[in-house]
Amino acid sequence: MAHQAAAGADSGDPTVRPQDREFLRDFHHTSRYGATPAGGIDRQAGTAEHGQVRRWFEERAGQLGLSVVTDAIGTIYALREWVPGAPFVLVGSHLDSQPRGGRFDGTYGVVAALHAVAAADAAVSAGLLDPRYNVAAVDWFNEEGARFAPSIMGSSVHAGILDLEVALQTTDPQGVTVAQALESTGRRGVDPAPKAAAYAEIHIEQGRRLERSGVPIGIVDRSWHTQKLLVSVIGEQSHTGATLMADRRDALIAASHVVVAVEEVVEEFEPETIVTSVGKFDVQPNSPIVVPRQVDLVVDLRADRASDVDQARGLLLERLQGIARRRDVEIEAQDFDVRPVQRFPADGVELAEKASRDQGVDSTVLATLAGHDSVPMNRIVPSVMLFVPSADGVSHCEREFTSDEDMVTGLRVLTGVVTRLVAGELADTASGGSDESGGAADDREDGRG
Amino acid sequence: MAHQAAAGADSGDPTVRPQDREFLRDFHHTSRYGATPAGGIDRQAGTAEHGQVRRWFEERAGQLGLSVVTDAIGTIYALREWVPGAPFVLVGSHLDSQPRGGRFDGTYGVVAALHAVAAADAAVSAGLLDPRYNVAAVDWFNEEGARFAPSIMGSSVHAGILDLEVALQTTDPQGVTVAQALESTGRRGVDPAPKAAAYAEIHIEQGRRLERSGVPIGIVDRSWHTQKLLVSVIGEQSHTGATLMADRRDALIAASHVVVAVEEVVEEFEPETIVTSVGKFDVQPNSPIVVPRQVDLVVDLRADRASDVDQARGLLLERLQGIARRRDVEIEAQDFDVRPVQRFPADGVELAEKASRDQGVDSTVLATLAGHDSVPMNRIVPSVMLFVPSADGVSHCEREFTSDEDMVTGLRVLTGVVTRLVAGELADTASGGSDESGGAADDREDGRG
Repeated sequence: MAHQAAAGADSGDPTVRPQDREFLRDFHHTSRYGATPAGGIDRQAGTAEHGQVRRWFEERAGQLGLSVVTDAIGTIYALREWVPGAPFVLVGSHLDSQPRGGRFDGTYGVVAALHAVAAADAAVSAGLLDPRYNVAAVDWFNEEGARFAPSIMGSSVHAGILDLEVALQTTDPQGVTVAQALESTGRRGVDPAPKAAAYAEIHIEQGRRLERSGVPIGIVDRSWHTQKLLVSVIGEQSHTGATLMADRRDALIAASHVVVAVEEVVEEFEPETIVTSVGKFDVQPNSPIVVPRQVDLVVDLRADRASDVDQARGLLLERLQGIARRRDVEIEAQDFDVRPVQRFPADGVELAEKASRDQGVDSTVLATLAGHDSVPMNRIVPSVMLFVPSADGVSHCEREFTSDEDMVTGLRVLTGVVTRLVAGELADTASGGSDESGGAADDREDGRG
Repeated sequence: MAHQAAAGADSGDPTVRPQDREFLRDFHHTSRYGATPAGGIDRQAGTAEHGQVRRWFEERAGQLGLSVVTDAIGTIYALREWVPGAPFVLVGSHLDSQPRGGRFDGTYGVVAALHAVAAADAAVSAGLLDPRYNVAAVDWFNEEGARFAPSIMGSSVHAGILDLEVALQTTDPQGVTVAQALESTGRRGVDPAPKAAAYAEIHIEQGRRLERSGVPIGIVDRSWHTQKLLVSVIGEQSHTGATLMADRRDALIAASHVVVAVEEVVEEFEPETIVTSVGKFDVQPNSPIVVPRQVDLVVDLRADRASDVDQARGLLLERLQGIARRRDVEIEAQDFDVRPVQRFPADGVELAEKASRDQGVDSTVLATLAGHDSVPMNRIVPSVMLFVPSADGVSHCEREFTSDEDMVTGLRVLTGVVTRLVAGELADTASGGSDESGGAADDREDGRG
C-alpha cells in the first residue's frame, strides 16, 4: 500500500532512518525558543519567543517545498497543493506553551506534522501515493490560553465556533489585545484558511495510561466532558491585628475550604473517572495585614461521563452553601466553558489502528482528558487524534518528557494516517460531534450556562 | 489647672462647643479625599489621593498658625514653637489608608492632633498654660504599609529603627520606589525632623472592647507581641485536565490546608488572647488550566503574651510539616517582622487617666493588638496612646465607624494629655520599651529571626 512505502518499510526495526534523524534534529532545535533554565519552554501566545519559533516553522516549511499562508487569527498553514482546487488534509498542533511549560506539548505535533507532510509529498512525487486531497501542516494560534482566554483559539475560529472579532479583541492581563499581539509578532494574516477535508493531530498523552500499559500509540475516540465554575467568595475586609477571630468574615479561609471541597468531591466517584482542580485563585486586597474581603477562583471539572460532571457540580454547590453558612460569607458560582463529550469518528479510529499495525506497533483506544485543537476540528471534518507516551504522565511543566524512540514511532504512525487521509480513506465519513447533538457538529451547547 | 481651661470646663455636657464643630467639620471634610462609593477611602501612601489630603493638612495647619516642615521620609510636622530651642511634644497619626479602607483609621488622629495643638496654642496665648516644650501635629508617612512594606514607616525612620535609605528604596508591586512616590506627590522633604520630648496619639480602637464595656476612652499600656511567617508551599505544575488526581502535587490544595491550620491553631488558646491570619496569598502560575506549582503566603501571629505567639508558631510549624508529608509538597517557613510586647510608661497611663477624669469620662487600660506610630515613638520618648470606640470593632474596611460624640470626647481627652505633656508632666519619665530589653528602648529584638 502506498502509505507503507511513504512511512518506510523498516517498522519494528529500532534503526533510525535519515528522515527520523532530520525530524529529531528539528524537534530538539525548537526547544531553544523560549528555553527556561530548568529545561522547559515559556512561549505564551503572541510573545516575542512565540514569534521566533513561528518564524523558524515558516522557514523550515519553505525548505521542505511548502508554501506558507497565515489567516486572520494568526494560524499558519504550510501547504502542498497537488490537486488544484481540492480541499486539504490538515495536520497540526500548536507552538505556544504555558508559562514554564514543557517542550513537547504542542510542539511535537507541529514538527511531526511538517515531516509527515514532507513524507506524503515524497510519496506523491515517487508515484507511490495518488492524492485525492491536498495537505497542509498547521500551527494553530493560542491553543494554551494562558495569556489570552479562551484556549484552543485558532482552531475554534477555524471551526466557526468562536467569532473572529471576539477572539481578536480578547485581552491579556496587561490589556493587550490578540490583534495587537499578532501585529507585534508579524502574524496578523490576511489569507483565507485552506478548506479542510480531514484533520490529523499527534500529541503527548499528558497522562500515564500508555506508559503504564507499555503501548506506544494511543488513539483518541472521545474527549472528556468538561466545565468550569467561576466562584466568588465574599466576606468582609478587616484588620489582621486588631480584629478578634470571632468578629471576622475572612474570605480566604472560606475559599480555602472551597479548594479542599473541590478535591474531596472526587471521593464520591470511581478512581480515575473524574478530575477536579482550582488553578486560578485571586485574593483581594492581598495585603499582609488585612483580612481578605474576596477571593475569585476558577473550578475545573472533567469526567468521562457528562453525568459525573453534573453530579460533582451539584455536590460541590451544596458543599459551597454549607461553607457559606458556616463561615458567614457569600459564595456565588457561575458555570462557563461547558464542553460536552466529543466523539471522534469510529472510521478514523479504525484507520489509525491500521496505520499502527502497518508499523508493527500496538495501539490502544482512549479518551483525551485535555482539550486539543482536534476537538473543534472534529466538529467540521472527520479527525484522527494520536497520543504518544508521557514520562510519569506529567505535562504543563518543565520536566515533561517523551523519548526520541516514542516520538519517532508516533511520527511513523502519523505519516501513515496522513497518507491514508490524503488518499481519501475518510471521504465518506461524517465529522464527529458532541454527545448532546447526536453526533453531528452542533454549536448549541456553547451557549449552555 | 491649666489644661482644664484649655480643654474646656463643660465636661460631661453633651453641648458641642464651637471648636468641636470646627474639628468635626475638618474631620468629615477629609473623607472626600480618595472617597470610595461604599463610604470608605482609598488613599494608599504616595498616591495622588494621599497627596491631596496632605495638601489640605498643610493648608489647614497654616490657617491655625502652625509652620509646616517635611522630613526626608515624607513625614509632615505642623509646628508651634513657643520656647525657642526646646524639644517638641509630637501629636500625630497618619492620613494614608488601606485599599478600600475606612475614613477613621489614622485620619481621626491627625485631625484631632491639629485641633489639640491649636487648643494648646490658645491656652498658651491666653496665659493659661506655661509651656516647657513646643508642640507639633504630625502626619506620619506610610503607616499602613499596604503599598510599601513595611508598615509604620515614617515613625520607624524617625525613631531610628528603620534606615532612611532602605525605606526610600522600598518598591511597590509596580517597581515604584518610596523616593519616586514622594517626589511625584511633592513630599520628598529636606527639613530635619523636630526633636521630640514626648509623643501622644489618639486612634479608633479597631476592636469591640470599649464598645462592649460602654467606656469611651481606652488607654494603651502595651502592644501585643507580633510576628509574621513567610510560608512557601512548593508542589509541581501540571495540567488540570490531563493529570490524574493521584499524580498531582498541587501547591494550592496544600496551601489551603495551611490557611485552615493557621486559623485552627487558636483553638489551643484562651478566647481573645491570640489572633492569627493569612492576608497575602499568591498562586503560581495562576492559570485556570494549570495545577499550581507554588503558593507564597504571609502568616500573621499576634498575642498578648510572647509565649503564646511562640507556642502557636511551634504548633503551626509542626502542622505544616504534617501537611507537607501528606500532600507530598515542600513547605518552607521563614520568620520576619518580629515585634515584642512594648510597654507604654506607667506615668503616661496615669497622666491619661487624669486627663479623662478632668473631662468627667471613664477610661480603661488595654493593650493594642494593632501596630501604631506610637509603638516606635515610645522607644525614644515617653508616649501616650488613646483609643475611642469602633462600631462593631471593624476596621480596615469601608464600614468602619466612630460617632461624632465619641470623636469629640476623644479630642477633649487628647487635648488634656497634650497640655499636660507641654507643661512637662512626663519630663522625668523614661521612654517605654520592649519586654525583651527590660523596659528601655533597645533595638536588639529587630534582628530576631
